[in-house]
Amino acid sequence: MATFAPSTHCPSSSPYSNDSSVINRFHQRVALSSIRPKQCRPRKLSLQQSSRPKAVQLQDGASTKKASSAKSDGVVNILKDGILSVPPVTPPEESIDVAKFDYDKENSTVSITVVGASGDLAKKKIFPALFALYYEGCLPKHFTIFGYARSKMSDAELRTMVSKTLTCRIDKRENCGEKMDQFLERCFYHSGQYDSQENFLELDKKLKEHEDGRVANRLYYLSIPPNIFIDAVKCASKSASAANGWTRVIVEKPFGRDSESSAALTRSLKQYVDEDQIFRIDHYLGKELVENLSVLRFSNLIFEPLWSRQYIRNVQFIFAEDFGTEGRGGYFDNYGIIRDIMQNHLLQILALFAMETPVSLDAEDIRNEKVKVLRSMRPLQLDDVVIGQYKSHTRGGVKYPAYTDDKTVPNDSLTPTFAAAALFIDNARWDGVPFLMKAGKALHDRRAEIRVQFRHVPGNLYNKNIGTDVDLATNELVIRVQPDEAIYLKINNKVPGLGMRLDRSNLNLLYAARYAKEIPDAYERLLLDAIEGERRLFIRSDELDAAWSLFTPVLTELEKKKIVPEYYPYGSRGPVGSHYLAARYKVRWGDVGSEQ
Amino acid sequence: MATFAPSTHCPSSSPYSNDSSVINRFHQRVALSSIRPKQCRPRKLSLQQSSRPKAVQLQDGASTKKASSAKSDGVVNILKDGILSVPPVTPPEESIDVAKFDYDKENSTVSITVVGASGDLAKKKIFPALFALYYEGCLPKHFTIFGYARSKMSDAELRTMVSKTLTCRIDKRENCGEKMDQFLERCFYHSGQYDSQENFLELDKKLKEHEDGRVANRLYYLSIPPNIFIDAVKCASKSASAANGWTRVIVEKPFGRDSESSAALTRSLKQYVDEDQIFRIDHYLGKELVENLSVLRFSNLIFEPLWSRQYIRNVQFIFAEDFGTEGRGGYFDNYGIIRDIMQNHLLQILALFAMETPVSLDAEDIRNEKVKVLRSMRPLQLDDVVIGQYKSHTRGGVKYPAYTDDKTVPNDSLTPTFAAAALFIDNARWDGVPFLMKAGKALHDRRAEIRVQFRHVPGNLYNKNIGTDVDLATNELVIRVQPDEAIYLKINNKVPGLGMRLDRSNLNLLYAARYAKEIPDAYERLLLDAIEGERRLFIRSDELDAAWSLFTPVLTELEKKKIVPEYYPYGSRGPVGSHYLAARYKVRWGDVGSEQ
Repeated sequence: MATFAPSTHCPSSSPYSNDSSVINRFHQRVALSSIRPKQCRPRKLSLQQSSRPKAVQLQDGASTKKASSAKSDGVVNILKDGILSVPPVTPPEESIDVAKFDYDKENSTVSITVVGASGDLAKKKIFPALFALYYEGCLPKHFTIFGYARSKMSDAELRTMVSKTLTCRIDKRENCGEKMDQFLERCFYHSGQYDSQENFLELDKKLKEHEDGRVANRLYYLSIPPNIFIDAVKCASKSASAANGWTRVIVEKPFGRDSESSAALTRSLKQYVDEDQIFRIDHYLGKELVENLSVLRFSNLIFEPLWSRQYIRNVQFIFAEDFGTEGRGGYFDNYGIIRDIMQNHLLQILALFAMETPVSLDAEDIRNEKVKVLRSMRPLQLDDVVIGQYKSHTRGGVKYPAYTDDKTVPNDSLTPTFAAAALFIDNARWDGVPFLMKAGKALHDRRAEIRVQFRHVPGNLYNKNIGTDVDLATNELVIRVQPDEAIYLKINNKVPGLGMRLDRSNLNLLYAARYAKEIPDAYERLLLDAIEGERRLFIRSDELDAAWSLFTPVLTELEKKKIVPEYYPYGSRGPVGSHYLAARYKVRWGDVGSEQ
Repeated sequence: MATFAPSTHCPSSSPYSNDSSVINRFHQRVALSSIRPKQCRPRKLSLQQSSRPKAVQLQDGASTKKASSAKSDGVVNILKDGILSVPPVTPPEESIDVAKFDYDKENSTVSITVVGASGDLAKKKIFPALFALYYEGCLPKHFTIFGYARSKMSDAELRTMVSKTLTCRIDKRENCGEKMDQFLERCFYHSGQYDSQENFLELDKKLKEHEDGRVANRLYYLSIPPNIFIDAVKCASKSASAANGWTRVIVEKPFGRDSESSAALTRSLKQYVDEDQIFRIDHYLGKELVENLSVLRFSNLIFEPLWSRQYIRNVQFIFAEDFGTEGRGGYFDNYGIIRDIMQNHLLQILALFAMETPVSLDAEDIRNEKVKVLRSMRPLQLDDVVIGQYKSHTRGGVKYPAYTDDKTVPNDSLTPTFAAAALFIDNARWDGVPFLMKAGKALHDRRAEIRVQFRHVPGNLYNKNIGTDVDLATNELVIRVQPDEAIYLKINNKVPGLGMRLDRSNLNLLYAARYAKEIPDAYERLLLDAIEGERRLFIRSDELDAAWSLFTPVLTELEKKKIVPEYYPYGSRGPVGSHYLAARYKVRWGDVGSEQ
């Protein structure tokens, strides 16, 4: 198996670039494959990309005001309050040559401020991801990390807190302690209120000290509840924007709870930052196999003719968790599974799956195609949605709680912890193909996967060898996002022996077997993308609007009519209603049954 | 993974039919799959098949004289010398109902006479295959096996000889000794000349004793050199034909050495037997994965759109042996590798691969399509052929001999032990697609495989990630016939990590990992087919003619011009000329290089 040499270079990968590993196992014929442990996105790639025009064309007919070429690369920060930061003498434009880059490397800094630094996400995901990027050599030479939160804490205390969650990648523990110390030395803390311009001004002052006169780029990761989003963005923008580099803001879901609130949130955000400063994170888009989806589709000829209504019978997007809210239902109860999983994670994956071939892999080209898919979708009907809520269940002497047993959840909550929906894309490629989604908590297993069921073979010569259920004999492509990342293709073949009996075997690619390297966490990829200004995996406003348009009417109806969810036992396969919904469209869920 | 229940039943499989095995390994997700050890072709299948009209339509414009419905099932034997055996009161027609079958089972016999019983093939392949069929319960209730050869031998001596080569299937050794004894009791010997009608009359007498008044069916396996073929067929036909059942003759290659001699052989054969009594064996067609080729193609929708010039760039048929003639070059030297491997094995597989979808899986329908492929092929040019001969090579102190070091080979022999050829099928499906063949002895490894290289992705978004050799990045389907039967599909995917690097991974199906059952030997399948009158895997006269038409002009030219083969070292990858031949058609052999 060849590993294609990347056509671009990774400036920081040299120490490992000759490190090749041989994986050769029984079931997996793998030859010399030079898997480089260090694989930051090479700079030259950005150069190539940014040589294209970058005007942001929104699909809803509106378009952002034509950005200047300097600004369109996110280099110069225009604050909405009228202050235009003057480009420095050597603007950190990305469309410059490599020599200039090395100069910029010396003369620019990136400051990453984690707003809400004492929260769970920050501790469990953001700091570890930043450390992993540092370990991999993916952070710029000059960088500073600030924790920002209300609680009083010293730099040393922050470092102690952060150090507890850092782990070294299992595939290269060397120098880990040393690297960790170096990383922690770059971490600082600033205590302040989220709505205090004064406190952000203090932060600005500290950041400037670290920036030390270099070109300053600033990234704010807002790991705080939605109700204080806007205040923090306002303060950061007004009082702590980069003076001569870019300022970017990463925001996490929820992005509102329906079309209206989402639009209001976007409007508010845009009072203080531009569309291209906003990085709306959907960490599912950072998952390895979701990233690979486009590679699979567009770099393999064999999938090209198959990817349409002509060959695909249905597509399934499945998300299952094997635990409930477990005392943390307070936030969830206000949103429910449709908003929490479907409207964002699953719908984003659907759009990536179903989009037309983009003009290029540039962020705007991909997001343009995704928006087209979302806007071609048939309005979702209440009839095409099944909701469920888990109830208490005792198994093996252990009693598993009901959703409403969660003390943070109202006793009479009708919030769905499970939902299934049938969606349709009314365009030439997908007309009539059911796209089924299913998401739930407290189910019998944990998985996230895409299943593509192909049509029956027309005029099948082997019909008499197949038995009664033809559906079981169709080809199926499964992209398993978690756990155990894998791709497999179910094909029919002959059971060895003298007779002619068919069965279905898998053509397999199990990531763990193929790749020795630990797969990076989604947050690493997304943080690096935000630092590099790569917007491909972030959600644009018009995408968000289209996604909400699809789900808002049904969500409103569910709540207005107080539709009672179908109760399902904790640890079960979820409401049987989901099977009847599937059956209405002649679909059989691929994750249930004797074969998976 | 589901195993589809066969829609037909195997009368003899009951003792094992509930025996299911669970295979669940790390790289191979295999669920409960009931793999039955006993898998003879179910009777009902033959019934279904023979309910179709069976007129033999030859593709070369001629057609055999319209067979009577009784005869067309090969049931009644018409001898060319004018004697018509009268159908018995209960003719063993296959289009009868099951009740009648059970009656026939009691009242019919099959006698299998191995002519040339003391030869290598008989000892190594035929008797063991017959025993395996017996062990599997695939032979009829009443059967007798006769060895026929010139040497004097008693029944007991034959049994001793045969018993030495019998082995029990590794997956079920139970009762093996007992079964072996039972089998040997049904084996007898008759000594006679191959051209003696008298000796065959004696055989006839012995056979009749065993047949004991039942409906007699007789199968002759001619495991003798071509120069005595005809005499033996004549004698068997005239003196030892079945009186009231079918008589069939299995013949092994060589079927002549060019168009003329092959046609003469067929003409001679047809003096004594009809086309549908002749079973020309090509044991490659009995290989499991060759059998599976049609299943793969026709029962998997995903391959349907791919199987043409639009998506396939080239197809390669590769046969390699890692040993030379080793003192047995006498026969080979008269034929050479093109006649020995290409004109039959590889060309047959090519025809199966490239044929249009047949009307049904019936023998005549499949053979009709195969002949169409052969007749659509562009005449092979000398330019498109590379020949080689292995020369002596010393490695690690061991000296490996040259072909001409073989004492049975003339010192000045120009016989090719290696050949590569580029072939084209000038029809709508395959116009312009190179079909490359390569076959050789004394090469660096042993393999037989089909490689399908797909086209480049048009407008590939990932071109810049692929590197300089786009050919390496195309999809490839590999069907490995031996050793270690496997199917794998090479796809591009993203190397896990933060960058965007592609590599090529395999979607794998390794038979040994998936199926616990030992794969039956090709001879078992073919013998069973011949007993059951299933002609799908045997070569019809018009197929043979078309195959010879393709190769005869080049073979004649090679010999007339005394073309000197390119010499290659024993144990090497063969003549480099094969690479230049491939390069002329923009093909890269898939079996050579870092990736396989």
